[in-house]
This record gives sequence, structure tokens and C-alpha cells, in this order.
Amino acid sequence: MIFRQLFERESCTYSYLLAARAGGEALLIDPVKEELPKYLQLIRELDVRLVLAIDTHIHADHITATGALQDHTACVTLMGERSRAECVSRRVREGEKISADGLQLETIYTPGHTDDSYSFRMNDRVFTGDTLMIRSTGRTDFQNGDPRAQYDSIFHKLLRLPDELLVYPAHDYKGWCVTTIGEEKSHNPRLQVASCDEYVTQMNGLKLASPKLMDVVVSANLRCGRDA
Amino acid sequence: MIFRQLFERESCTYSYLLAARAGGEALLIDPVKEELPKYLQLIRELDVRLVLAIDTHIHADHITATGALQDHTACVTLMGERSRAECVSRRVREGEKISADGLQLETIYTPGHTDDSYSFRMNDRVFTGDTLMIRSTGRTDFQNGDPRAQYDSIFHKLLRLPDELLVYPAHDYKGWCVTTIGEEKSHNPRLQVASCDEYVTQMNGLKLASPKLMDVVVSANLRCGRDA
Repeated sequence: MIFRQLFERESCTYSYLLAARAGGEALLIDPVKEELPKYLQLIRELDVRLVLAIDTHIHADHITATGALQDHTACVTLMGERSRAECVSRRVREGEKISADGLQLETIYTPGHTDDSYSFRMNDRVFTGDTLMIRSTGRTDFQNGDPRAQYDSIFHKLLRLPDELLVYPAHDYKGWCVTTIGEEKSHNPRLQVASCDEYVTQMNGLKLASPKLMDVVVSANLRCGRDA
Repeated sequence: MIFRQLFERESCTYSYLLAARAGGEALLIDPVKEELPKYLQLIRELDVRLVLAIDTHIHADHITATGALQDHTACVTLMGERSRAECVSRRVREGEKISADGLQLETIYTPGHTDDSYSFRMNDRVFTGDTLMIRSTGRTDFQNGDPRAQYDSIFHKLLRLPDELLVYPAHDYKGWCVTTIGEEKSHNPRLQVASCDEYVTQMNGLKLASPKLMDVVVSANLRCGRDA
């Protein structure tokens, strides 16, 4: 299998290019607009055909490349059914399978960071967007974020997956690339809570600054990053 | 297997933590001094015991954490036999095997970036330091660098490894994490040369600025990063 984790240094975003084989179909998760030329280069050099560009949710800290990728490769753009982005060509619901030439992702609805946050599981790994991150969780204070929903998504869905499952998030700010469900269960400081209420209190107390240009970025992402 | 690629954003350095299993022995390749607390955290949380801290060569752009890791964990520090760093506790030569509890690396002497540059192969992957990088090669204009030696190291050693072998370098500046021997053979722009002489001309024409604080950094690395 071809699996490429790609890092955008400005927003510390991880994107993921996956394909079962050279010459086959590929999908790209959480691509960043500024990186478009690199994606097109890599797709060409790896000799894969991009068929799906996926966003785990409407990002507030970077502009998505999904629209530009569709314009360049005619790929399908995909988000979860709760997305407000009317630009996407396919919407998936909880449990729905996403297939591409030897690859299959399963859709898990994991609201909390936003109400349109989805995770995608493939065999031994899960792509968790900004829901479950390495020793952290996504903030819940904008875009219909809800710490109670995030608690449910993490404790009742993600942490019930196998302990050895690899977890690939959409961001990491300390240079770590991957984790596992078991590791986060034991060592994620935000998950060492006794109750949902305690989790909610913790998240509501974070007092984080808004991402730079958030309104502009969200508005652009509702257009799949086009005209941005 | 536990395999963690770790990224230091300032110098764009990749370090690699490897262990066969939780509870077992681990080794760390090209660690960066500023990241020491994170390494110690990860080693503790993954429940592994660091037994080897390895530098592929004397770095000129960041200070190694090998000495500090030895001070904290009593691990062995290791470099190739051509290293001028008298601080290291073990030196290995071309072809020598490095073992740790279920892991085995094979030493490949790959001079060119420096005269003490080594690569280390483990099963399906090779750690190439600053010799072979993703779509690039390490500069050859200081620390006894030699483009002719680098041509030999790359063309007569590394590119003779299997095409599907994963290549993990010590740096990437564009956010890419891994490549393969076959991919670099076909798509690394510096390797599309007809002869060694053409490679030498290309490398000698690069005209790169020296790394910031190079003299201080090299001097610190000759002490395994201690007192820096």
C-alpha cells in the first residue's frame, strides 16, 4: 500500500495520501490549498489517479485544497452529511463505506470539535481529524463545537476501537506523527477524566484565542477553498 | 513494531524511535537536543527502554541529544567508525549489525555529505541521514563533504537496494515524510545525471549559505551535544 503523511508547517496540518498500488486510485484526506502543487507532483510521480478528496470537517485554520484538486483532477470531493459545504460532490453518513480501488474507509460520525466532524477508519488505522489528537483533543468553542458531544464521540466511539489501532490526526503541534487508541486512553491528559461533566468543564475552561482569519477561512472552506 | 517518526520544526529534522514491542528495548536515530523532554516522555509512555542513541553523522544544523539521552537513560551512543566524535560509546563499521531486542540494523557507510555519514537499513526501510533525501541529496561543501564520494554512496550502494525499500531521511523541508528507493531513482532531480562528473558539477554549483551557528553546533556535536 502507498501511504503518505504530508505536513504543512504553517498550520501544522497533516494530510494523507492513500492508494492500494502504483497505477491505482488514490484518495487524499484533509489537503491544504497552499500545498496543491506538491500534491499534484506526488500523484504524478507515484503514478496514482486521485479519485477522492476528503475533508474530515470544515477547517477553521487553513483553506482546503479539495476544490482545487477537483478542478485539476476531476476527483470527487467528500465530506460527512452534516457538512454545510454545499460544494462537495458526495456526502457520507455514519457507517457508510467509501471505496477506491483496493481501499475501503468506514465513516464514523464524531461531532464535538465541530458538528460536522467525521473520522474515517481503514483496516489498522483511523483518521480522526481534530477530534482525537496526539495527547490532545480538538477545541470545542466554535462552529457548533460541543464538549459533551466530543466526550461521546471519543469515549463511546473512538476509544472503543482496538487499542493497537493507529491514530492519524489532522494536526500535531509538537512534531509527533501518529499514536494509538491504547496510548491515548492511557496518556492523553484531556482524557483522564472521571465523567462527561468533568470533560466539559475542562474544555470550557481552555480560553483559547481564535485562529487567525477564521471567518475568512471558514467561508472559503464552505466553497471547498475555491476563490480564496 | 513501534515506529515513531518525530519532526523538529526549527531545523526540519526527522528523528526515529524504534522498538520491537512495548516493554522492550528501543533505539533512537538522529535525536535533537531541544526535544529531549518529549523523547523521555514518549519512551516512558510507550514503556520502552532506550538502549541506543544513534547519529547518522555529525550534524551541522542542530545539536544532537545523544549525550543527554545517555545521561538520562544510560543508553549507548553510537556512530560510524569514521566519526571524529570521541564521546560516542560505540562505533560501527560498514556491514556491521546493530541489535536491540528484536530489532536489527545493518550499517552502510555512505560518505559524501560528510566523511562520517552512515546509513542504517532495517528490514523494509533504510535511514539515510543527509545522504539521500526526498527528491534531494545532502550538500557536500563542508565537513569533508565530497560530491564524488556521495555519487558512489548513492549510485553504488543505496540505489542498488530494492526499489520498494522505504527511505527515511534526517530532514525534509517540504513536509514529506518518506520515499522509496525506486521513487528517488526516477524522480529525484539531483540523480538524473549521466555521470559522476555531471553530479559533481551540479553539487559544486549549488552555492548554499552555511547553516546558522555551524561552527558552534559542530563543536557541540563532537561532545555528543553536552555542555551546549
